Amino acid sequence: MEPFNIHILGCGSALPTLKHAASSQVVEIRGKFFMIDCGEGTQTQLRRSHVGFMKIQAVFISHLHGDHCFGLIGLISTFGMLGRIAPLHVYAPAALKPLLDDQLKLFCNRLSYDVVFHAVDTSKHKAVYEDGSLTVETLPLAHRVPCAGYLFRERPTLPHIRRDMIDCFNIPVSQINNIKMGADWTTADGTVIPNSRLTLPADAPRSYAYCCDTRYMPDLYQLVEGVNLLYHDSTYDSSCADRAKIYYHSTSQQAAKVAQDAHVGKLLLGHFSARYDNEETILKEARAVFSNSVLASEGKVVGVE
Amino acid sequence: MEPFNIHILGCGSALPTLKHAASSQVVEIRGKFFMIDCGEGTQTQLRRSHVGFMKIQAVFISHLHGDHCFGLIGLISTFGMLGRIAPLHVYAPAALKPLLDDQLKLFCNRLSYDVVFHAVDTSKHKAVYEDGSLTVETLPLAHRVPCAGYLFRERPTLPHIRRDMIDCFNIPVSQINNIKMGADWTTADGTVIPNSRLTLPADAPRSYAYCCDTRYMPDLYQLVEGVNLLYHDSTYDSSCADRAKIYYHSTSQQAAKVAQDAHVGKLLLGHFSARYDNEETILKEARAVFSNSVLASEGKVVGVE
Repeated sequence: MEPFNIHILGCGSALPTLKHAASSQVVEIRGKFFMIDCGEGTQTQLRRSHVGFMKIQAVFISHLHGDHCFGLIGLISTFGMLGRIAPLHVYAPAALKPLLDDQLKLFCNRLSYDVVFHAVDTSKHKAVYEDGSLTVETLPLAHRVPCAGYLFRERPTLPHIRRDMIDCFNIPVSQINNIKMGADWTTADGTVIPNSRLTLPADAPRSYAYCCDTRYMPDLYQLVEGVNLLYHDSTYDSSCADRAKIYYHSTSQQAAKVAQDAHVGKLLLGHFSARYDNEETILKEARAVFSNSVLASEGKVVGVE
Repeated sequence: MEPFNIHILGCGSALPTLKHAASSQVVEIRGKFFMIDCGEGTQTQLRRSHVGFMKIQAVFISHLHGDHCFGLIGLISTFGMLGRIAPLHVYAPAALKPLLDDQLKLFCNRLSYDVVFHAVDTSKHKAVYEDGSLTVETLPLAHRVPCAGYLFRERPTLPHIRRDMIDCFNIPVSQINNIKMGADWTTADGTVIPNSRLTLPADAPRSYAYCCDTRYMPDLYQLVEGVNLLYHDSTYDSSCADRAKIYYHSTSQQAAKVAQDAHVGKLLLGHFSARYDNEETILKEARAVFSNSVLASEGKVVGVE
């Protein structure tokens, strides 16, 4: 299977700490790299990671709080200094555009590549990016300002060719694609070998949902049903449930409830409040509800499988 | 003597590295704290330092390149989250104002304190800040965009009282201030004790000049004559002198020439290019011209004496 990995660059919340960087991660999917959120210092975190600067083809911004987007202009500026030529696509709430335009004019007036802005309607669940191998959909979230999560889905792939059967029946290379598309094979003596003997089922398409920042949404599970990996706002432990409600964040229990209701494969907890020296309670409380929960941390690479 | 220290938060140049942070430093002078420049990640560097977030009363921006100012909005935003009440003064080229206003509107619309903007004319050498204990003057520099250095000068202080003489002549406390201001003392039997016997000379006012970013300016020494400490753009070693000229930066030799011509006390080298694994050559070449040269580094605190 081709890699489908989440590279965590930052999983802290609004107040910067020396333990956690501001929100940012890179989704590596079938050889392509997409960034989600870009808090201050993201370019330094990217340098620490094993993701090449030039590989990022788009940045998806969830919402216009500083810890999710203050690093964008620095990233764009550095890409320019490194001689980037390929356009960089930015998906974000529309209000960012005039500001970004002014920043580009003031700081990047001879940029070597285009920054292409795509306004995201955070109130809609719809596809905002599609190519031959994947789609990205917005997920409307409940935060203090308009906010969208992003759902990355692989498109279905073709079945796997059984190399041993191809050899056994001496099937020429020119026929491989037909067989992948479902054709049977007729041998020289007229025997029909059914496609099912020549192939193994395609890998199930994988999917990843990023849901941050958000208050607990009892119906969110419907939009992320069955995803392999869910990253969900887990700013607090249950002792701060009131605070979570007031500030439109979630406890890890609430994140786990979404994971459970949506039958996801794995839950990745993140966006930790600066108040915690460690996230043991956050993890423990999530696991009590949904056992396959793990903590995000800077530098961690989590496979979507 | 009251502390007069420079806290180096970042001394790298435009391209971020894992070794150096973007430009920023804090001038601690007689219990007051002023920031100079505020590249991306400065708030994290400030947290690493021993300078309290709330103590910064003003930020002086030298010029509008990202590595000198992209961290400002994050710093302002974090000060707000921490409940700052005292106004924060920002001294910067005028072009930053509309952008900063838009950022404040979009990201900090209920800020708990005022951000007071002071447009700096980078082409003039003039005082932009004055209080009872210090002045800050701009230093016009030669960079690709309008750029000013900043010169911090202590105001002269009063002479020191000689406690032993005060005791010897039984001089009452009420007279101390008069004596500090220059008065003699007449004893009960009419003997006049001259002021010079009652006091020791005041400490010489100290001064610090920040000159970054700039091409070598043969006449700059006139503006920084005799400062105790000079921070000067030392982006390159001499092998990159052509590059320094093209990009309006300096070699450390050039920085040392300014230090020598200006008879400064100490030269602090900074703004190192990302191309160097270490700055040994930069230091060696500076010392060959001006021996009291030292390298800046993140976390270093350099006394002005």
